Amino acid sequence: MSKPLPQGFRAAGLHCGIKKDPAIFDLSLFVSDFPATSAGLFTQNRVCGAPVKVSRERIRRTTSRAVVINSGNSNACTGEQGLADARWMTGLVAEHLGCAAEDVAVCSTGVIGRFLPKEKLAAGIPQIVPQLAATPEAFELAARGILTTDTCVKMATRTILVQGQTVRISGCSKGAAMIGPNMATMLCVILTDASLTVAEADQTLRHAVDRSFNSISVEGHTSTSDTVLLLANGAAFGGKASPLNAADLAQFQQALDEVAADLAMAIISDAEGATHIVTIDVKGCRTRDEAMRIAKTVADSALVKTAIHGADPNWGRIVSAAGYSGVDLYEENISLKVNGIPLYQAGTPLPFDATAASKSIRDNRDTHIELDLTLGTAEVRYWTSDLTAEYVRLNADYTT
Amino acid sequence: MSKPLPQGFRAAGLHCGIKKDPAIFDLSLFVSDFPATSAGLFTQNRVCGAPVKVSRERIRRTTSRAVVINSGNSNACTGEQGLADARWMTGLVAEHLGCAAEDVAVCSTGVIGRFLPKEKLAAGIPQIVPQLAATPEAFELAARGILTTDTCVKMATRTILVQGQTVRISGCSKGAAMIGPNMATMLCVILTDASLTVAEADQTLRHAVDRSFNSISVEGHTSTSDTVLLLANGAAFGGKASPLNAADLAQFQQALDEVAADLAMAIISDAEGATHIVTIDVKGCRTRDEAMRIAKTVADSALVKTAIHGADPNWGRIVSAAGYSGVDLYEENISLKVNGIPLYQAGTPLPFDATAASKSIRDNRDTHIELDLTLGTAEVRYWTSDLTAEYVRLNADYTT
Repeated sequence: MSKPLPQGFRAAGLHCGIKKDPAIFDLSLFVSDFPATSAGLFTQNRVCGAPVKVSRERIRRTTSRAVVINSGNSNACTGEQGLADARWMTGLVAEHLGCAAEDVAVCSTGVIGRFLPKEKLAAGIPQIVPQLAATPEAFELAARGILTTDTCVKMATRTILVQGQTVRISGCSKGAAMIGPNMATMLCVILTDASLTVAEADQTLRHAVDRSFNSISVEGHTSTSDTVLLLANGAAFGGKASPLNAADLAQFQQALDEVAADLAMAIISDAEGATHIVTIDVKGCRTRDEAMRIAKTVADSALVKTAIHGADPNWGRIVSAAGYSGVDLYEENISLKVNGIPLYQAGTPLPFDATAASKSIRDNRDTHIELDLTLGTAEVRYWTSDLTAEYVRLNADYTT
Repeated sequence: MSKPLPQGFRAAGLHCGIKKDPAIFDLSLFVSDFPATSAGLFTQNRVCGAPVKVSRERIRRTTSRAVVINSGNSNACTGEQGLADARWMTGLVAEHLGCAAEDVAVCSTGVIGRFLPKEKLAAGIPQIVPQLAATPEAFELAARGILTTDTCVKMATRTILVQGQTVRISGCSKGAAMIGPNMATMLCVILTDASLTVAEADQTLRHAVDRSFNSISVEGHTSTSDTVLLLANGAAFGGKASPLNAADLAQFQQALDEVAADLAMAIISDAEGATHIVTIDVKGCRTRDEAMRIAKTVADSALVKTAIHGADPNWGRIVSAAGYSGVDLYEENISLKVNGIPLYQAGTPLPFDATAASKSIRDNRDTHIELDLTLGTAEVRYWTSDLTAEYVRLNADYTT
């Protein structure tokens, strides 16, 4: 499960006491030995955590040196004190690394509405810095420290050859489980030893996230803390700026897209209570945005999600969800296949073997929904999970 | 449970064989002895049933004589034949009543994507017409014939005094349960012996529906067949046009709002698997539309619904749902009470007795969420139900 770090990065993870169980990590640190070009994408929720506000501000600077993440407490909805605490946490990391506090980004995930336990972090941060290492094992410990209700570590890596140098992109993510006592978060840190300009970092990250983390949904509830960070330190080129040509950049984009997609799929695969992973392909739309709205409406429908859980090839729920997506369409524009079986064609239900279709859903963890429209050429791929009684139990039955 | 019909209306309900169990009704007829001013509001789903298309067209006419409704088959997603079948059904009713087919509105609810069993209706319609009666018992039989997975008949009535005459408004509704094998529908027929112009019928119905059926949600999946019809036959005034003054109209509106709200609440109370009925008051918004978006986003959040099921006073899920509603706001604009207990004030969590708050949710079927914003003076009231494992079971576990 462990993956190598790109050159010039070190990482560490440990238990500092935010969570009760001493076997479970709750603090992680990712450090670049060179000032790294950085980019970040954050939750669209207007109610967001203090760490999001602090990191969003800082990531606009040209360089970053470190990302510090705690789990077990999201420092969200905590007002002015929350902001002060998030800044204090980066200041303490900066002091031990010998850099400016503004060079340190911060994420927090866990219970919302409680103040950070500063005394735990005041003890943990001096302890984690000496443990920083450039090994795959150290990276895996850091990937563990960001988890909440996840059942497994989520890591991915790719290498490409750029101008004769091996360039590596490695990342880790957490989410989207949300037992509690509060809601969850999707976090991701991606590190690369490529040399990128600020604009390149921003554009390539947006492209990758649109096709990965922005194309998955468990129940459509937008967290207050979602964060994806990219640090590019140029270490593959000795830390020097080494402009990528268009072909290099296309190759880098492809590899970054793959790392982000792997990490997003790892989240969906670990979705709470899920028995099916659902891939939704929407094709033939006027725009990518319209295809996205249809895909997201189908993905978020509790009726579609329960039908798949029940192995029911219920084309009516899928077609009618497309119908209320807000996209200008009529049933005659819609055709549908589930697991390759044509169920609905240009507005008319097709005869099909319901027993075989149901068996195909029941026997496979992966379900494939294909919606083909006649409106244009834009398409998207989207992923979700089914809705199970276990999901309800996990999210309802933890109070006594 | 039975309610009186307004003057000049007759109704009937029976089993014609669309559903298997002969004890369960599947055909209803509502008839006005006078040409009635009519208004209708229909599903916003772009994929809608053939009866919706036919009724939407007809209800624009100044008068209607009858509404025929079958349950057990929604005649949705059935293409050109579906339209022809819906028209045929109204034609057969018209023939037996001695009016024009265009004077008959039609609704169908039940399985989608299957053609109407015309032979059952061809036998049932000649049988139901002679059973039409003006009694409360006949009205209750008609209210039974429109049900699908509902566990009870849903009826409401109000009377007011207008220009010395007793005016009655009576209605029945069905929904929003959706076992299946397919999705469900909300239907409602409201009858009154008031004398209304077409514009008055349309405006008063819109006002009532905005504050009732458009303010409830079970899981946010918009049906293909939702229909609310209002027939006003003026029988309280001997079937003659008798213009209402502004005060009369305000009084009528109030009574109509109450009938619609009763029928909408009956639907929420009968929501599949629900253990809680949740009333969401959103106040202090810039516009009614913004208040509605916040209320609907909170109502549709699976995390909010499971928290209430688990008796968890989880203000974080409620506040963060408001945060992603798309309304321009910040956490400092938001204050929240649950069952009267202040949990969050102007962006800061309040200390509260979590055990007492949880007990208050667990011990009451009704849960009250109050969101107070500081953006303006607009407000809405919205209703939903909680999300339970039983809901998942009902919607998933019917395939074998």
